[in-house]
Amino acid sequence: MERTIDAQLDELKRLILVMGGHVERALSEATVALISRNSESFNLVHEIEKKINEGHIAVDNACLALLAKQGPVAKDLRLILSIVKINTDLERMGDQCVNIAHTGKDYLARKPLNTLADISKMSEVARSMVKESLDCFVRGDVELAKRILLMDDEVDCLKNKVFKDQLSHMKTSSQDVEACLDLILVARNLERLGDHATNIAEDVIFAFTGKDVRHGGKFTRP
Amino acid sequence: MERTIDAQLDELKRLILVMGGHVERALSEATVALISRNSESFNLVHEIEKKINEGHIAVDNACLALLAKQGPVAKDLRLILSIVKINTDLERMGDQCVNIAHTGKDYLARKPLNTLADISKMSEVARSMVKESLDCFVRGDVELAKRILLMDDEVDCLKNKVFKDQLSHMKTSSQDVEACLDLILVARNLERLGDHATNIAEDVIFAFTGKDVRHGGKFTRP
Repeated sequence: MERTIDAQLDELKRLILVMGGHVERALSEATVALISRNSESFNLVHEIEKKINEGHIAVDNACLALLAKQGPVAKDLRLILSIVKINTDLERMGDQCVNIAHTGKDYLARKPLNTLADISKMSEVARSMVKESLDCFVRGDVELAKRILLMDDEVDCLKNKVFKDQLSHMKTSSQDVEACLDLILVARNLERLGDHATNIAEDVIFAFTGKDVRHGGKFTRP
Repeated sequence: MERTIDAQLDELKRLILVMGGHVERALSEATVALISRNSESFNLVHEIEKKINEGHIAVDNACLALLAKQGPVAKDLRLILSIVKINTDLERMGDQCVNIAHTGKDYLARKPLNTLADISKMSEVARSMVKESLDCFVRGDVELAKRILLMDDEVDCLKNKVFKDQLSHMKTSSQDVEACLDLILVARNLERLGDHATNIAEDVIFAFTGKDVRHGGKFTRP
């Protein structure tokens, strides 16, 4: 027999997936704008972020209502608390996309640098992380959640490479320091996006297993 | 008559205040280490962050237990959900302090720059924001919460100044680009600390008034 709460939890999951879709699109638009040098597309990121923010408030309210009306316990309660946290992470991902759009606009106003391959790759991996973290949330797939932590290592490596390359370029081309710093900051935003996806993966593991793998808990990377 | 839940909520508030104290101390140690050029003190930041992480898990568990056992509604429920979020913000503030310690260690290994006054001021304002955001949480002081949003503007202004000054120095002193970038990244971490304190202030307003002031909600800055 299906419980009333199951339909409400399914609706919450649906709302989270819609938000995740917005985050993916915001990240994609921001990256395409940067790489194709189309400053107009950055405005789309701001439009999408508004939807993410609306979703953020809607999910929070739905969680509050569900907790108040159903008084859930055990796995249901863990799931709802995880949704509260995943919701916050998705909203902050939206902020990171907006940060990329801001910095990206500055970047496009300067002399172009020919070094966006790593940024493009980072964005692709970060976007996969967003998508897969939500896939594993919906499916309750703890193994996939563990793989996301490995993808985060890839993003961190790429960030280090961007930092190193841009610092090296700054040393020899003082006229490009602003553009180089822009790319460093975008790499930092992409790294933060990866961190948020990692938080989601950790919340999924907690929701579905009750195991707290944060702060070097019971989980070791595969 | 005092309700059972009041004692448990007081205990939760106490745990949050302890975490807040750790965050303040971690930020203070990181800044003092940077300014007094004492690399050893950065190790203290890592020690303090461990305590913050322990507190993070303890508060989450206590919230889960309280929700499961008491099935709180209305104001109590909003307060507990706010505590879940404040807890996450405090934990991420600990991460930012650790980031400052990492970058600070790199910075101290380089030729010193004579430009730490703004960083020091930023750290001071960010630390006040942490302290006051938790004061207003404990006292339920919504007016103080609103003032914190103004302090965040001050941190953002200082960050912009650090960015501008360091970029300018990078242009003329290519041997210092790494050290300049270190200070830019520290300023960015301090800005993020201010953002987290702002999130706490917004959560306090929600917990005590039921008004959602995020994303340009019903609140306008004084």
